[in-house]
Amino acid sequence: MDREEFDYFERLFHPESIAFIGINEGSLFYLQGPLVAGFKGRIYVVNPNRESILNFKCYKSVLDIPGDIDFVTVTVPAKYTPDVMRECVEKGVKTVHFFTSGFSETGTEEGKKLERELLKIARKGVTRIIGPNCMGIYCPESGLSFLPGFPRRPGPVAFIAQSGALTEQVIYTGRLRGVGFSKVVSYGNAIDLDNPDFLEYLSEDPKTRIISTYIEGTKNGRRLFETLREAVKKKPVIVWKGGQTERGAVAVSSHTGSLAGSGNIWRAALKQIGAIDIRDLEDLVDTYVVFLKNPPPRGRRGLIVSFSGGESVTETDKAVEMGLEIPLLSRETREKIERMVPAAGISTRNPLDIPSAFFRFANIAEVIKVAASEDNIDYVIFEMLDRFRSFAKRFRGYQWYINLRKSVKEAADYIKNELGKPFVMAILPAFSEHEAIFLRKFYSARGISVVPTMTRASKAIKRMIEYREFLERHGED
Amino acid sequence: MDREEFDYFERLFHPESIAFIGINEGSLFYLQGPLVAGFKGRIYVVNPNRESILNFKCYKSVLDIPGDIDFVTVTVPAKYTPDVMRECVEKGVKTVHFFTSGFSETGTEEGKKLERELLKIARKGVTRIIGPNCMGIYCPESGLSFLPGFPRRPGPVAFIAQSGALTEQVIYTGRLRGVGFSKVVSYGNAIDLDNPDFLEYLSEDPKTRIISTYIEGTKNGRRLFETLREAVKKKPVIVWKGGQTERGAVAVSSHTGSLAGSGNIWRAALKQIGAIDIRDLEDLVDTYVVFLKNPPPRGRRGLIVSFSGGESVTETDKAVEMGLEIPLLSRETREKIERMVPAAGISTRNPLDIPSAFFRFANIAEVIKVAASEDNIDYVIFEMLDRFRSFAKRFRGYQWYINLRKSVKEAADYIKNELGKPFVMAILPAFSEHEAIFLRKFYSARGISVVPTMTRASKAIKRMIEYREFLERHGED
Repeated sequence: MDREEFDYFERLFHPESIAFIGINEGSLFYLQGPLVAGFKGRIYVVNPNRESILNFKCYKSVLDIPGDIDFVTVTVPAKYTPDVMRECVEKGVKTVHFFTSGFSETGTEEGKKLERELLKIARKGVTRIIGPNCMGIYCPESGLSFLPGFPRRPGPVAFIAQSGALTEQVIYTGRLRGVGFSKVVSYGNAIDLDNPDFLEYLSEDPKTRIISTYIEGTKNGRRLFETLREAVKKKPVIVWKGGQTERGAVAVSSHTGSLAGSGNIWRAALKQIGAIDIRDLEDLVDTYVVFLKNPPPRGRRGLIVSFSGGESVTETDKAVEMGLEIPLLSRETREKIERMVPAAGISTRNPLDIPSAFFRFANIAEVIKVAASEDNIDYVIFEMLDRFRSFAKRFRGYQWYINLRKSVKEAADYIKNELGKPFVMAILPAFSEHEAIFLRKFYSARGISVVPTMTRASKAIKRMIEYREFLERHGED
Repeated sequence: MDREEFDYFERLFHPESIAFIGINEGSLFYLQGPLVAGFKGRIYVVNPNRESILNFKCYKSVLDIPGDIDFVTVTVPAKYTPDVMRECVEKGVKTVHFFTSGFSETGTEEGKKLERELLKIARKGVTRIIGPNCMGIYCPESGLSFLPGFPRRPGPVAFIAQSGALTEQVIYTGRLRGVGFSKVVSYGNAIDLDNPDFLEYLSEDPKTRIISTYIEGTKNGRRLFETLREAVKKKPVIVWKGGQTERGAVAVSSHTGSLAGSGNIWRAALKQIGAIDIRDLEDLVDTYVVFLKNPPPRGRRGLIVSFSGGESVTETDKAVEMGLEIPLLSRETREKIERMVPAAGISTRNPLDIPSAFFRFANIAEVIKVAASEDNIDYVIFEMLDRFRSFAKRFRGYQWYINLRKSVKEAADYIKNELGKPFVMAILPAFSEHEAIFLRKFYSARGISVVPTMTRASKAIKRMIEYREFLERHGED
């Protein structure tokens, strides 16, 4: 991406002036978005049928607005979009985003024709198009926000998708799990700016540490894969592909009018280029959390710390089935641990199943540190129970619980910072959802990655391992 | 199971008198259990070193207790267990449960020898053994409870496992999701009473509608499978097998000292006999919820109702990959729906992606009912968003939200009761966890099955379909 193009995208995400064309009560949220998100530039409203909206004077046309306009969101019905587009091109607007739907995604000939017309008009000037049939842009740093309820604090993750509602889901779920966004784009039918354009920019964007995208289809598969291939070399790129089955592809065609490819081909290609292949919203957010808060694992050998023998067994099975290893701890380490906690009812082979270390002592940090220090351990998965507080109240007193919580935090810090190994905590709401939420917030705020289950911890860690292995293989090229 | 044996188990779960041998501060919860759970029979405490515990007079020996003793829990160290066992046999105790660990699960020769000794002593009388190395019994109906925090209200689900901590997790997670238990057994090393004994009883127990079990290994695989095979004919039997990989089997040996079998063989065998094969706690509880609250589906053809085109596509992919079908709705049905809601930005092919039906109207119940009424729809998966309340507050007013909630409830009732088709709601905490919890409780309390994601809804429904198909095939034998 050359300097000029990069600057175009910088301005797209940080416009100095924006206008809303066709806004009315039904689309008021578009105007509220930047107002709530603290947009610092100039804002204009175009609606020939109104005097003012939310105290903004309504212009008859974008041409009547004084000064340049960087970014326009259009919410007029489809049939009026060519006229609006013509005026935007004449005005020299840099980017026009069409919220309007009723184009190729309807499958009708008129819809497709309208799209071709918009593009033809755009090509007469410098104006670029986002959409139609999409939500547009969320960039908390600049205060651009297609809905008023999004977080104001930026973060290191970018997400781009055709889908609008999905984009919303990702932003909200990220917020819930403590993940913030640098840039989010819902780009809809992508008649002009398409997935690879955004990918290319984001791979150079210093504010983005992780790129993620939901893709249904693409007009230019070769370009998409080339762009993904280059982006992956610079930062982790997570790809969520929709329409992997024949029937799913039919659903795609009624959603965005794209042509979806076969799942197997996509997945093989993603693997080959080192992109992180995920399948749903939970996977996506788990992957964000685990990548953002951990050093890369050096290998596939994990330590599992659990409070139930049954889950120790089950999670070992699942980790092994995923291609991870749960090595036995050495005789020496096990003896060290057995000197620290009473031997009855525990297992120290790995998984560590050491309820007594919790329920009778508060030296859990020491036990985990000893086990995690072994050379043949590359990462740690730790199950935190949402019933420790209740247990403490009943049997050990609240101070015991405070100590436990702190000592787990210390162990995690030691493992990540001193040993340089990932530490992922699993908190399944089982006893008290409110406590599970509290614990997740407590540890997330302290830099520890938390996911809901040990299985999901293994899954996310496996993705880190594969990405690291990919980079190592290709660093040697 | 003959009448005498059935009566033995009835008495085991509903004892008239219980005694705790060796109880002290560390094992006080065993005494607190039945006190909190409302046990109506006689309770005795044996501890030669104490005068009284929790106001209970301490007997020197079980032999000093007046009257018969049905059920004893033993918490003395392993080396004292043979003496205790001898006294229990002399007393004619019906069942002795050993919480004590330090037997074959340690892998030592002494441990195995001690177990053989206990069994030998038992065989001199009528006394049966549960354990050692386990938590014992929870039966809310009789007030038997191995921990004081378990729910007092009984339910229709039985769960049996070697593991103790896992059993706890299942009870708590069930409570959280609105599922109650008839009987729960943690049976540990199973030197006498084993999985098939409990299975046989539970398959005849009128209080149990669903049987579930976590199994690591068994001494008599043939008997276990024969018992499962018979039980499946009477009610759904869910089997969670731990130790399916070689490495997982090693974890098993340090947990319960069992020999685990190969995963593939187990799974093929479970499939052949019609048992429901699950892999983790979330799967288990989802399966409970969906089986308990729905009529069996007649076929594999589902309707998905979602609020994001992206998720519609993804969930279609996943359902199809699981072997389910998401048929296109007929021209006629689609036209009916399109007369009810504005066509822009929606898809009516299936998945129904109809945000406008929600955001502009409150006739969602009618739309879903029309779609679900099609002959080629066998079940419905409906995504409920935890941001509707916030949306309502901002844009439509609270009454809109109340109507929406009610109309979804009506649609679910109609689909289940009038059409006789399962209706599973998916609520993923994405916007507000507290609202997601509220909604789950709201709908669960009204008889509607709720799971966290559409994928998990598909998974649980698939299990219902397979169980029904199995019964149909074997009903013809």
